[in-house]
Amino acid sequence: MHPLVALVTVLTVLLLMTTMALVGRARGRHGVKAPATQGPEGFERAFRVQMNTQESALMFLPALWAAAAFGLPWLSAAFGAAWLVARVWYVVAYLDPAGNRGPAFALSALAILALVVQALWGLAWALFLG
Amino acid sequence: MHPLVALVTVLTVLLLMTTMALVGRARGRHGVKAPATQGPEGFERAFRVQMNTQESALMFLPALWAAAAFGLPWLSAAFGAAWLVARVWYVVAYLDPAGNRGPAFALSALAILALVVQALWGLAWALFLG
Amino acid sequence: MHPLVALVTVLTVLLLMTTMALVGRARGRHGVKAPATQGPEGFERAFRVQMNTQESALMFLPALWAAAAFGLPWLSAAFGAAWLVARVWYVVAYLDPAGNRGPAFALSALAILALVVQALWGLAWALFLG
Repeated sequence: MHPLVALVTVLTVLLLMTTMALVGRARGRHGVKAPATQGPEGFERAFRVQMNTQESALMFLPALWAAAAFGLPWLSAAFGAAWLVARVWYVVAYLDPAGNRGPAFALSALAILALVVQALWGLAWALFLG
Repeated sequence: MHPLVALVTVLTVLLLMTTMALVGRARGRHGVKAPATQGPEGFERAFRVQMNTQESALMFLPALWAAAAFGLPWLSAAFGAAWLVARVWYVVAYLDPAGNRGPAFALSALAILALVVQALWGLAWALFLG
Repeated sequence: MHPLVALVTVLTVLLLMTTMALVGRARGRHGVKAPATQGPEGFERAFRVQMNTQESALMFLPALWAAAAFGLPWLSAAFGAAWLVARVWYVVAYLDPAGNRGPAFALSALAILALVVQALWGLAWALFLG
């Protein structure tokens, strides 16, 4: 594993920990005790932020590792940095009832797509043209 | 990472993206705005498809990578292809209210079990018999 | 992938399979048919156990692999074993209405943090001091 790719991986783990902690804080503030996952909108926003960050990370990390293995590790890490910025932006935008999380979501999806394209490009060379 | 294993990994990412897009489409069709995750059965089916695909991918990918590292990479990729076919079948079967998703679920679980057995077999050799 | 790290990885997959099977059993016992995810507290406890195990595994496995790549693989595997013990304890404690899942949750979070610190320590050497 390339050091920059590992750094992006560890920062992704820290982002996931942060969204988990935000749900814990929202449970306290809004009085929503586990195992309930429904409640005031403020709680549900924090809960959806965590779920959507997990959903995105589950696509992002495998794409990152495959792209780094068959493409350029530093370029994969750069797309990874873009994904991290987009997902932090997404957390802030979704927690704000007046926020617009659309652009942050789009940027994070584009970063994953760029990793998928890079991985497939490298794989085409390795499998058919090598 | 073996090229065929990376190919299965990238196709898994594309499957996850597809199930995410299907939930977005179901939100539009059934008028279920985020952060809500409850609604008409058509929406809830699309949502459960995404959740169950994520749940299965989180078991599948680590099993795939461990099996490829300690077993035969091409055999791991073949079990991976079986998992991919089973999960596409599962999506189609679960979205159809008259569909039967049982066989697709069973096939995908068998593919993961085959990877687990392959990984444990290779690990037993590496750890105790090497 | 170090054999002990792969062993922890495969045991994590088996833990995820077990929590999935426990939800299936709870669906039968409490008569909660998919796609519903709400129901009697006994069902919701089993469902939250699976969700929380997935949430933790998604942070744990990438941290484990990054720590093993840039730290000491056997130490990463030892923290991994602590995480596995903590998450099995968590399952048992959360399923029991009188149980206290707090200490198990704390231990599993500490294990992930230890892996993150180990990975960052190794990365600092690789990136800046190597």
